[in-house]
Amino acid sequence: MGINQFRRNPVTGQWSVIIQNEYDINDLFSNEQTRKSKKTGDSEHCQFCGGFETETPSEIFSIRPNNTRKDDSGWSVRVIPDKKPFLQIYGDLNNRGIGMYDVLDGIGAHELVIETTEHNLQLYHFPLKQIEHVLAAYRERILDLKKDARFRYVLLHKNYGEGHKEVLFHSHTHIIATPITPTRVKTELMNSMEHYQYKERCLFCDIINQELSVNERVIQENEKFLALAPFASRSPFEVWIFPKAHETFFESNREHTQLATILKDILQKITTTLNHPNFVMVLHSGPNIANGRLRGYWKTLEKDYHWHIEITPRLRGFTSFDVGSGFHVNIVSPESATRILREGKTISAKQEN
Amino acid sequence: MGINQFRRNPVTGQWSVIIQNEYDINDLFSNEQTRKSKKTGDSEHCQFCGGFETETPSEIFSIRPNNTRKDDSGWSVRVIPDKKPFLQIYGDLNNRGIGMYDVLDGIGAHELVIETTEHNLQLYHFPLKQIEHVLAAYRERILDLKKDARFRYVLLHKNYGEGHKEVLFHSHTHIIATPITPTRVKTELMNSMEHYQYKERCLFCDIINQELSVNERVIQENEKFLALAPFASRSPFEVWIFPKAHETFFESNREHTQLATILKDILQKITTTLNHPNFVMVLHSGPNIANGRLRGYWKTLEKDYHWHIEITPRLRGFTSFDVGSGFHVNIVSPESATRILREGKTISAKQEN
Repeated sequence: MGINQFRRNPVTGQWSVIIQNEYDINDLFSNEQTRKSKKTGDSEHCQFCGGFETETPSEIFSIRPNNTRKDDSGWSVRVIPDKKPFLQIYGDLNNRGIGMYDVLDGIGAHELVIETTEHNLQLYHFPLKQIEHVLAAYRERILDLKKDARFRYVLLHKNYGEGHKEVLFHSHTHIIATPITPTRVKTELMNSMEHYQYKERCLFCDIINQELSVNERVIQENEKFLALAPFASRSPFEVWIFPKAHETFFESNREHTQLATILKDILQKITTTLNHPNFVMVLHSGPNIANGRLRGYWKTLEKDYHWHIEITPRLRGFTSFDVGSGFHVNIVSPESATRILREGKTISAKQEN
Repeated sequence: MGINQFRRNPVTGQWSVIIQNEYDINDLFSNEQTRKSKKTGDSEHCQFCGGFETETPSEIFSIRPNNTRKDDSGWSVRVIPDKKPFLQIYGDLNNRGIGMYDVLDGIGAHELVIETTEHNLQLYHFPLKQIEHVLAAYRERILDLKKDARFRYVLLHKNYGEGHKEVLFHSHTHIIATPITPTRVKTELMNSMEHYQYKERCLFCDIINQELSVNERVIQENEKFLALAPFASRSPFEVWIFPKAHETFFESNREHTQLATILKDILQKITTTLNHPNFVMVLHSGPNIANGRLRGYWKTLEKDYHWHIEITPRLRGFTSFDVGSGFHVNIVSPESATRILREGKTISAKQEN
């Protein structure tokens, strides 16, 4: 069994993680039933539920009362390593060329934030205090993983929705630390840096100012945060959440009440309006400048980049046009999506994935 | 009803086509049954079948015996405008800024190549001569659409597979001409140009040479064409087909026997091995240098870019990691995929989408 590899496609510039375990091929073809019973579990057998702590790997971090011990029950939020990580934590990157191709070993971290002891609650059901605990756990893990200079980026992402085949149902977030800045984030960083070089202003702050003055795509706001439908939304009902004041790193904050409030509201609106769709949530914070190369490269980072959360409902799969062009065709304008989400009435009887 | 818009996300640099027809929202939530009966049709009611020519828009191009007339039956391949195009052919681009955002009107062409009169045949079932007719129709339409200097690119793409919800079953290809070079193609063009500036060699020719000498990812070849599993495949069993000799434009060729042969073989192998998966096929030819700006920009185009076909099975949906990072996690290495496709035995009893 070899180590997984990061491989770069010289034509597209995209990196893929190529898994080396031959036996995994069968996972592709396991039928839905098998996969469901294997991965979803029910509340009696779910290893993420309170009381089943011994069935998971030992915890890396938790929020729990002082009188409870590591890996005991009684916790509020718990972070564990993924049982089958596709990146491994130990080893050198072994950055090398294979002929004309670029390859790195699949080094990285893959952790899971278990957001509740309760099997049937989604994040938007939680009391605000519990959402704040989840956000506090995000912060702690980002700060800790960024101490490792091998990692250029720490990405948090999660799937919502019962319908999604590939996820455990019990509410959780993936944390992935990677030795390469993810392509998607790198593009954001470059566009932000270019905008700053040209205008000496933060691109995101400019967007926030314009959106607040136009007020066609602002779905919700509170004193510190703004939720809007991006002008060029990739998919119907895409929502981005920003801090109104300029801030590069999510992990700069200790206080999460206002973020928890807007996040809960927006997730509830999406869930109600679109009748429990599947959706993806991603946190884009600044890169890891503990990595010296990055500090040199993103010279104006603290001034040009602005952390945010991206929420993308999966209302339809990708089409051959999307794949071939990289364009997205979006049949619901962000202005319509904003009106519908502001109103908050259910508009559908069924969603598909 | 407004005109659809190309809108650019200044953060990601990605363009979306935002559809302006309010009523389309319901399409998102039509249940699968409705959509299927509306779009799939069966052989008795399919408007793409031979004998139902009057039910479609009038043809733009066809390959048919000399003694038959336009829109009569008896054709071999027929190209028609899409009934509900998301880009419209008439009008100016109206390239403008809306505040800080970039917007163009949704001008373009959206045509369908109906590849056969027979409802139940897929491209890989066709006799070679019929596949050659399809490729000849591709060529004619690319040449014709490239006369329009508003269009920077002509993209051909198609979905295979019965399972895909959003496609008509009757075998057809989409042709889309766009006033913006698709993001995905632009990245290829830039990487190819950079490689050429540095090495004075075509990036694709370098890949072909390396792959032929290593021979770990070459699935099939004939005198003129090569099918390989890309070194950094995005998804299991991805296949790219290249002409072995350097060639920038697909439409430079009049003679398609060898391409038809390797295409049929590869599609049959994928279909057999993976038990009729859904998959996407995309043709990437060079951009439209009838557009003067492009000729100035891609100065070494004829030397640095190399047309090719990309085939991507859809064995699983995108994950939140894919969405957030732009990385792809691929659980079947291209070396394994090559061995399996070379052998050509069925490895699965079921596929999912």
